[in-house]
Amino acid sequence: MKKYAFGVDIGGTSIKIGLMETNGDMVETWEIPTNREQSGSRILSDIAEALVNKMEENNIVYDDIEGVGFGVPGPVLSHGIVNGCANLGWGTVDIPAIMSRLTGIDKIRVANDANAAALGEMWKGGGQGNQNVVMVTLGTGVGGGVVLGGEIIPGTFGAAGEIGHMTYSAAETEQCGCGKRGCLEQYASATGIVRMAKRKLQRDERRTVLRGLPALSAKEVFDAAKENDMIALELTDDLGEALGIALSHVSCVIDPEVFVIGGGLSGAGNILLDSIKKHYEKHAFHASRNAVFELAKLGNQAGIYGAVYLLLN
Amino acid sequence: MKKYAFGVDIGGTSIKIGLMETNGDMVETWEIPTNREQSGSRILSDIAEALVNKMEENNIVYDDIEGVGFGVPGPVLSHGIVNGCANLGWGTVDIPAIMSRLTGIDKIRVANDANAAALGEMWKGGGQGNQNVVMVTLGTGVGGGVVLGGEIIPGTFGAAGEIGHMTYSAAETEQCGCGKRGCLEQYASATGIVRMAKRKLQRDERRTVLRGLPALSAKEVFDAAKENDMIALELTDDLGEALGIALSHVSCVIDPEVFVIGGGLSGAGNILLDSIKKHYEKHAFHASRNAVFELAKLGNQAGIYGAVYLLLN
Repeated sequence: MKKYAFGVDIGGTSIKIGLMETNGDMVETWEIPTNREQSGSRILSDIAEALVNKMEENNIVYDDIEGVGFGVPGPVLSHGIVNGCANLGWGTVDIPAIMSRLTGIDKIRVANDANAAALGEMWKGGGQGNQNVVMVTLGTGVGGGVVLGGEIIPGTFGAAGEIGHMTYSAAETEQCGCGKRGCLEQYASATGIVRMAKRKLQRDERRTVLRGLPALSAKEVFDAAKENDMIALELTDDLGEALGIALSHVSCVIDPEVFVIGGGLSGAGNILLDSIKKHYEKHAFHASRNAVFELAKLGNQAGIYGAVYLLLN
Repeated sequence: MKKYAFGVDIGGTSIKIGLMETNGDMVETWEIPTNREQSGSRILSDIAEALVNKMEENNIVYDDIEGVGFGVPGPVLSHGIVNGCANLGWGTVDIPAIMSRLTGIDKIRVANDANAAALGEMWKGGGQGNQNVVMVTLGTGVGGGVVLGGEIIPGTFGAAGEIGHMTYSAAETEQCGCGKRGCLEQYASATGIVRMAKRKLQRDERRTVLRGLPALSAKEVFDAAKENDMIALELTDDLGEALGIALSHVSCVIDPEVFVIGGGLSGAGNILLDSIKKHYEKHAFHASRNAVFELAKLGNQAGIYGAVYLLLN
C-alpha cells in the first residue's frame, strides 16, 4: 500500500477533497466550487488540476499515491461508471477512464456519496470496529447507505439504502419529492418535522413556544423539546417513532450491527437518539434488539473517508 | 470440483436429503425422520449413516464427494456452528466438526434453512440467472432469505431475512408468536389470512361463500376470490397490500433484482402474485419498480439445492 490517497466528495455546490495517509490519518482537506456549466464538463478537469497542484505543493510523487476515490451524487454502475447525476448536469460518465487520463493515476474507485459516507463512518466514525453498518443521514431529506461485511451494497438498480423513501404512512395525502405519498422523508427530515409541526399547530390548541415563531425549524422543535414543551416533545417522539419503525424494518432485512445517525438533525443529540431507540426496540425482531445506535462522527468529511476506503481493499 | 455432493435440509419432523451432481443435476432425494429425543443428539449420526449407506448403495467413493451442505432451522454463526435450534432440541452444535468425524468428509457447509432455500431458488429455481434474490416463504408463518451477489446475508445476529416480523400494523392488538404486535406474518401467512377472514366476517354483513364453511383455510379464500367472491377478493387484496408494502421496504434497503414467492400460499398463483405486484409498484421507490416477481420452482427441495450450492463457491 502506498503512503497517500485522495478522497473526493462531489456535491452540487462544492467539491470536498481530502489528502489522506492510507493508514487513515487525514493530512489536509479543502474545497473547490462545482462548475455545473456545460453539463458539468469541467468538473473532473477542475478536480484533476486540484489534485496535481496539491501533490506539487507537498512534494508528493506519483509513486506515493495509492489512488483516488470518489463519492458522487448519483447511481454508480460497475467499474465506477456514473449513470447520471442531475445535480451535476451529468449523463453517463466514465470517471475511472477520464481521471486516469487527466491525472496519470491508475487506481480510481467510485461510489454513490451516501454509500461512501456510510463506508467512511464504518471505517473511522460512529461505526468504527463494525462491518455491518447502516448510515442514516437526516438532512433536508433522509438519505441512507448500507455496508455489509465491510462492503457497500449498491443495489440492483442503484437504490439500496433509499431508506427515506420507505412508505411510512400509506394514508398520506401530500406528495414526496420522489412522486410517492407517505415516504419516511416526509416525516423524519428537517423539512418533514417542520411540515408535521405546522400540521400539528393547526389542529392542536395547546400552548407551545413553537406557536408564533417567525420561521419554524427542526432545531427550534428539538430545543423546545429539551425545555419540556409538550407539543415539541410529541413531535420529537413522532419523529423517533417514524425512524424507529423504519429502522426496525431495516433490521428484519439485513440485521445490521450499528446504525449511525448523521446529518443536520443529528445535532439534536440524545433527545433524538433516545426517541429512535425507544421505538426501534418496541418494533425490532428480538434477535436484532441489540443493534447499537451511534451518532455520526465525521460530519461532512465522511464521504472523503469512505472514498479513500474504497481504495484500500 | 468433484462429481457429487449431498444436500441436507433438517426440519423438525423429517430430514430431506439429496444426492446431487455438482453440475446441478439432482440424482436422488429421500427423507429420514428427525429423532428429537435426547436433545436431538442422534440427528447428526442418523444423517451420517444415511449418507454413508447411500454412497455404498451407489458405489460412490469418498474421492467423488465434494462435501455435505446443511440447511438448519436456526441461526448459524461463522464456521457453520449452529447457535440453538429449538425445533431440534439443539443448543450450540458444531456441525462441521461432528459431521467430518462421523463421515470422513471434510468439506461441510451450513446455513439457516430459509437462507439455504433462497440460495437454492437463486441457483436453480425462480431466481435463476440473478445474483440479488429475496425469497419469501408464505406458509404457516412468513419466512425470508436474502441473497446478494450470490451469497447469503445472514445478519449480525442471524436475523437477516426475518421479513415476517416487520411491523405492518402498529395498531394491532393481537400478539404475534414472536411476542410483538402487528408483524407482517399476522396478516400475510396461512394463519394470518384466516385470522383476517374471521375478523372481516364478524364485522361485514355481505354475502360470501366463506361464511358458514366448516373450517376456513387460505386455499378457500383464494378459491373464492378466483370465483369473484367480493369478500374473498378484498381479503386477497389486503394480503397483497401487506406483502407489497413490506417488499417495497425491502427494496429501499437492498434493492434486489428478483423476489421469489414460495411456500404453501404461493399455490394460489397469479391472483396472489398480481396483487402483491400491484401494491409493490405503488409503494416502491421508482428505481426499484423494475424488480421481478417469480413463483418458487423447487418446492420443498429448495433447501437441498441451496445446501449443495454452499459447497460450490
